[in-house]
Amino acid sequence: MTHEIAVIPGDGIGQEVTPAAVDVLEAVDADFDFVEGDAGDAVREATGEALPAETRELAADADATLFGAAGETAADVILPLRDVVGSFANVRPARSYPGLDAVQPDTDLVFIRENTEGVYAGIEAEIDDGVRTLTRVITEDASREIAEFGFKYAKQNGFDDVTIAHKANVMRETDGLFLETAQAVGDSFDIDYDTALMDALAMHLVMHPEDYGVVICPNLAGDMLSDLAAGLVGGLGLLPSANVGEDNALFEPVHGSAPDIAGQGVANPSAMILSAAMLLDHLDYGDEAAAVREAVEGVLADGPRTPDLGGDASTDEVTAAVVDRL
Amino acid sequence: MTHEIAVIPGDGIGQEVTPAAVDVLEAVDADFDFVEGDAGDAVREATGEALPAETRELAADADATLFGAAGETAADVILPLRDVVGSFANVRPARSYPGLDAVQPDTDLVFIRENTEGVYAGIEAEIDDGVRTLTRVITEDASREIAEFGFKYAKQNGFDDVTIAHKANVMRETDGLFLETAQAVGDSFDIDYDTALMDALAMHLVMHPEDYGVVICPNLAGDMLSDLAAGLVGGLGLLPSANVGEDNALFEPVHGSAPDIAGQGVANPSAMILSAAMLLDHLDYGDEAAAVREAVEGVLADGPRTPDLGGDASTDEVTAAVVDRL
Ligand SMILES: CC(C)[C@H](C(=O)O)[C@@H](O)C(=O)O
Ligand SMILES: CC(C)[C@H](C(=O)O)[C@@H](O)C(=O)O
Repeated sequence: MTHEIAVIPGDGIGQEVTPAAVDVLEAVDADFDFVEGDAGDAVREATGEALPAETRELAADADATLFGAAGETAADVILPLRDVVGSFANVRPARSYPGLDAVQPDTDLVFIRENTEGVYAGIEAEIDDGVRTLTRVITEDASREIAEFGFKYAKQNGFDDVTIAHKANVMRETDGLFLETAQAVGDSFDIDYDTALMDALAMHLVMHPEDYGVVICPNLAGDMLSDLAAGLVGGLGLLPSANVGEDNALFEPVHGSAPDIAGQGVANPSAMILSAAMLLDHLDYGDEAAAVREAVEGVLADGPRTPDLGGDASTDEVTAAVVDRL
Repeated sequence: MTHEIAVIPGDGIGQEVTPAAVDVLEAVDADFDFVEGDAGDAVREATGEALPAETRELAADADATLFGAAGETAADVILPLRDVVGSFANVRPARSYPGLDAVQPDTDLVFIRENTEGVYAGIEAEIDDGVRTLTRVITEDASREIAEFGFKYAKQNGFDDVTIAHKANVMRETDGLFLETAQAVGDSFDIDYDTALMDALAMHLVMHPEDYGVVICPNLAGDMLSDLAAGLVGGLGLLPSANVGEDNALFEPVHGSAPDIAGQGVANPSAMILSAAMLLDHLDYGDEAAAVREAVEGVLADGPRTPDLGGDASTDEVTAAVVDRL
């Protein structure tokens, strides 16, 4: 069965790493049809819209989407796209690789971030001169859905500990609901879990990431904690992510458009290629996904490496080396 | 002039480290009158109230308050106490000390955390079955006040870079107001400043804390980022904090009541003694504050050390060593 894959490179290094991921997907034994769409700063400049209706439709109609990065318009592109694919779960693995510089070389974490509500519900108002409010929304349904997804993920991927992050000592009703709902889900699984205040968790993750596995988080907490973890493993150049919905999904590197190095052909394609591996897994090409991951790990270990990892290889050379190993 | 200092040890190791800080304050040449009050789990158990009215009044009437820690009831104690002293700024230095194990030994940061609003405004509601909201509040006044405090702090303490943390790409109106207000304040100071999305900042702080100095944050962002920084310097045992108001203030270690080691007499008193040094600074005993800090640094470098820092000294031995150096 042919799967249609929407490809949205976006801005900056998105234009360089997205074709790299497509090269890799073309090199594995999978039946994909690629359709390309525009989004980001450049298309907004040209058309007034960061996310044109055609691109939205492309993503809505595809079986899965690969998204590169956007610049200034990142929020105007990625938040609606997550919505278009109906994504309720943002999956963000953060692991350190042997031989690469990392603040904490023993990191192997997966953040399961609620992807629809919290402060991202985005209802804001100016209720008086100089007084503004934002309505943070937490629902039992979304909390249950993300917790079920997180515990299932942990079981399927061999993690034996799960942490539920929250700030229910301050956000008593909202994070209280998130916490108690997630705990009830946890109790129905045969797996150890813990709960952690997200501030204390930030400290512990920095000091002892090896004590954690899967971390289930409200939306904004997941945003911050997963970036923190990116710092532990050596930066954003290695972190893929999946935005998973009921019957659609979008895959993107955690990094942005990196305007400082864009156009030089030296962007690290690893995060994007690992995002493509998550896409393969999602579409039930598990063996191919494993092969891609292994190829990326091999190249990370032995080179060639892009400048961000201390090498002097180009995006194309790294991509070719990954394809060679498949 | 005699200053009245309210002393609220609270629970767990608060009972051990607070007397240590009082010992140090009694050893310096300052005219203090100490009055003690109860708060926390134990007093709630006994009276039904975590923060009795008398303790509130003690803090309200004193020139400054020293608070130790509270257990389960932490939020019920510390949030009202911050309010009682009219604290708008939470000052949280995080630095690593030579000779101590730290994830990032080059850390010297001060978080200036807005201390009155954001999600801590705490207006929550159940608007439907399983649907709850929290109203996050950001005002221009509080944003200006914290930014002015932060930039002044940076100037007075010799920091030459300031970062304004925010998430205005998602919380456009509320953090937008925080950001633009803080930027306007920054423009009126003769000091370099930068702005940073708080997720990206979390990553950069983990990788390169040496690139940052003073970080001005909305309330919850400051809560998380300062705990993250605690992780960088080796844990909460070393981090003091000040809750500063117009004409009152409260000083507390960033750590909690540590029930696992409470009652053994081995809690590290450094964070609490450094909080007392911030109190001295606040009451214009600048030389005495500097002397206390130097004494703590000397003991951290040469010992004796408590078990959390790899030593086997008691709280009392460390405190005596600090007093000895004064
Ligand atoms: C660009 C921004 C809206 C986005 C988010 O906050 O989710 C980004 O930080 C991310 O984590 O993907
Ligand atoms: C106990 C809790 C309410 C408090 C906070 O969130 O401010 C604590 O985490 C802190 O940072 O002092």
